[in-house]
Amino acid sequence: METNSSGGAGGGLGSESSTMILHNAVVVTMDSDCRVFQNGAVFIDIDKIKAIGQSRDILQRFSHFAHHILDLHGQILLPGFVNTHVHTSQQLGRGIADDVDLMTWLHHRIWPYESNMTEEDSYISTLLCGVELIHSGVTCFAEAGGQHVTGMARAVELLGLRACLTESIMDSGDGLPPSWGIRTTDECLQSQKKLYEKHNNTADGRIRIWLGIRQVMNSTDRLLLGTRDAARELKTGIHMHVAEIPYENQVVMETRKVDHGTVTFLDKIDFLQENLLAAHTVWVNDTEIGFLSRSGVKVSHCPASAMRMLGFARIREMLNAGITVSLGTDGAPSNNRMSIVDEMYLASLINKGREVYAKGTTDPTALPAETLLKMVTINGAKSVLWDNEIGSLEIGKKADMVVINPFSWSMVPIHDCISNLVYCMRTENIVSVMCNGRWIMRDKKILNVDEEEVISLAKEASSKLLRRAGIKLPSRMNVIP
Amino acid sequence: METNSSGGAGGGLGSESSTMILHNAVVVTMDSDCRVFQNGAVFIDIDKIKAIGQSRDILQRFSHFAHHILDLHGQILLPGFVNTHVHTSQQLGRGIADDVDLMTWLHHRIWPYESNMTEEDSYISTLLCGVELIHSGVTCFAEAGGQHVTGMARAVELLGLRACLTESIMDSGDGLPPSWGIRTTDECLQSQKKLYEKHNNTADGRIRIWLGIRQVMNSTDRLLLGTRDAARELKTGIHMHVAEIPYENQVVMETRKVDHGTVTFLDKIDFLQENLLAAHTVWVNDTEIGFLSRSGVKVSHCPASAMRMLGFARIREMLNAGITVSLGTDGAPSNNRMSIVDEMYLASLINKGREVYAKGTTDPTALPAETLLKMVTINGAKSVLWDNEIGSLEIGKKADMVVINPFSWSMVPIHDCISNLVYCMRTENIVSVMCNGRWIMRDKKILNVDEEEVISLAKEASSKLLRRAGIKLPSRMNVIP
Repeated sequence: METNSSGGAGGGLGSESSTMILHNAVVVTMDSDCRVFQNGAVFIDIDKIKAIGQSRDILQRFSHFAHHILDLHGQILLPGFVNTHVHTSQQLGRGIADDVDLMTWLHHRIWPYESNMTEEDSYISTLLCGVELIHSGVTCFAEAGGQHVTGMARAVELLGLRACLTESIMDSGDGLPPSWGIRTTDECLQSQKKLYEKHNNTADGRIRIWLGIRQVMNSTDRLLLGTRDAARELKTGIHMHVAEIPYENQVVMETRKVDHGTVTFLDKIDFLQENLLAAHTVWVNDTEIGFLSRSGVKVSHCPASAMRMLGFARIREMLNAGITVSLGTDGAPSNNRMSIVDEMYLASLINKGREVYAKGTTDPTALPAETLLKMVTINGAKSVLWDNEIGSLEIGKKADMVVINPFSWSMVPIHDCISNLVYCMRTENIVSVMCNGRWIMRDKKILNVDEEEVISLAKEASSKLLRRAGIKLPSRMNVIP
Repeated sequence: METNSSGGAGGGLGSESSTMILHNAVVVTMDSDCRVFQNGAVFIDIDKIKAIGQSRDILQRFSHFAHHILDLHGQILLPGFVNTHVHTSQQLGRGIADDVDLMTWLHHRIWPYESNMTEEDSYISTLLCGVELIHSGVTCFAEAGGQHVTGMARAVELLGLRACLTESIMDSGDGLPPSWGIRTTDECLQSQKKLYEKHNNTADGRIRIWLGIRQVMNSTDRLLLGTRDAARELKTGIHMHVAEIPYENQVVMETRKVDHGTVTFLDKIDFLQENLLAAHTVWVNDTEIGFLSRSGVKVSHCPASAMRMLGFARIREMLNAGITVSLGTDGAPSNNRMSIVDEMYLASLINKGREVYAKGTTDPTALPAETLLKMVTINGAKSVLWDNEIGSLEIGKKADMVVINPFSWSMVPIHDCISNLVYCMRTENIVSVMCNGRWIMRDKKILNVDEEEVISLAKEASSKLLRRAGIKLPSRMNVIP
């Protein structure tokens, strides 16, 4: 038995079949009783939590079984965060579409970028994105629908993350880049079934394949219904951008003959199901919130990208209606920080501020800290249909967790631990991350890839990609070379 | 001559009368021509910039004069950021007033906290706040009006920062804590004049004393006019919270007999002058924006605290009207991150999003990155009436600057340097900070105080203060001790 009591979260690295105790931590379980062990411990057997409780008890009961015993010195232990909407293959395009209108964003920046990617680009992009996700405490993410899923899967397997990967799927729509062409509905469905066969439940079960619908304006009814039926058959989820802008709702009303927008139409064709993860979902009325609630659809709220591009999502109303709302960062060219930690802070501020329009003043009590912490943990897990194994620290669940050092200038004094986790914590405070029982970051060092090498690969690949795509950015200042 | 070419920003530490070249940096000058030297250098003589230009030229002309020559290895050099609204004496109260309504916030948390502070508490609070400010690249701040200015001054002098310090001033108002009592108008003015005599232009000229008005509902007309005249006599500025909530405007309309709010009233009594720094300034109409513009009043926009407590300030309209708008963090219990870096990111998102209410959709082109960078540098300097010496990197100005390492997972790839500085940069990227020609942080290490000691002092002082003030926070979760 090795006893490791050095600072931070040491030990356990690389041991295939080990048992471990993490003790002397503030354990914020996020279980249904909202238990917080002030001096708590977790006993882990390979990839699963076998016991959780007060340090004294856990040490007494399990010390003689444990290969590693780690003292966390009063740091905070949380379930790994779940980012429920992120375009990993867009990471190389960070900064290519800032401060431009939506049509320039899509037609002159994002589509040229995406349509010129190679599988290797997608691999490198996902590596870079994954490094940022891990630094911000994410152990599981839902890819929003991107390019070259095989490249993504390779990166996720290497990084040690957990993910629901999804291909960007469109079988119709105007203005797509000629190099892409339009795939037929059958090709769209076939491609995803192949990806499912190839990658689902790989990487020790950390990778799942979901089905994608980019958005309603790029989908025929046949694609929508075929996707719904395929998801049922494969017992997997569907990730779709829903009701992003008023124009989308207008087009749907005109072409799909319904009296409101996308959600009304999706309800009409019986597409709304428990396995649908609806991203953004900004422009919905009360009736549509009712549809989402009744059918058990999950909503991914992406505050930063909503503010930049879409509008104020009706989060308070959705939560009040019992909808499972989680948080996502969206892709790098829409945000540009890929930090779920910052999204918690943002979600709080934006949703407190939005009340001005309902009540005449902001409501500082809206979306309190404990709700936001739920959104990035257990609600995230429910959104990706994985809450039987992740999202809280409970016996039998996977050991996906984050160690937070709150004893720095950014978080002290700590009068209210839960609120400081949401409103003060920054990525700087996240020191170690474990996924599936294995450390993937320790003392801020990513373990499974060489960060410097990823950064260097990303620089080179992204420059080449931009040249290939013919994307040139205007200069904002008077640059003297 | 010492040549230091090791990574980061080395050398120059502690030398009283040294000359220094910083070279091989992307120098973003923020001068009126918006010049950016791709491979730039700055020559510093003691506390001032003596030359700026391309590395090759500066090295050729000044190498033989320079005591220190530092290679910045392609990192970015920016003017030090100016935080134009921060309550340094509230730092120990971070987290005491989250998710509560405005009246609870003020009467049951902030006032009891502030009225129970000692000068030593204020000193420790300002030390802790200063550490956070320096880590986020701030070299100069405007205190919003707080407790025990002498304690603040001691901390600022020690930290090496530049500041405009202001006492919290009220000579009327309901519901104030009994231990405070109400000071007479004359006592308010006298107290500030004494502080001015004692501290103005101390700490090598880094400290200036401003006059304070907490807010209109706590001020008699005599205090307002006396403050205006005293500021003119002392040639200093006035810092005041203005038009924060709709209720304030209502009270002003009823008690001060004007047809709109605070700004209309202040215009009527001839209080609006170039030396007024109006914080927040959320609830203003077009006419009032005209008043502010015509009189040269400066506005400090605090996006985080505005979202939590106040509402959407009309920043685009103010900038269009030619008003100098800068950014502030507000105090720790209103934000809770004291990071001007995060405020840039927030200001961009919130002001793009606010356009939904004007135009029906967000406007991703609103408040572009270059405008935000101006707000935290040259506009900040103008707001604190110090732009003759700080706010841009120019010959003759003070050497107040920040070294940023953009080569990390949080900022790469860098397709658009200016936009990445605003939308991707985090406090993690800020490696070194110089104020008045002296390094106050190098390679993320604060130089003039021991961070660990400050944190430890802050923990102790804040616990005692909360006990003294009788502030108890409810538990958000089921805590098992």
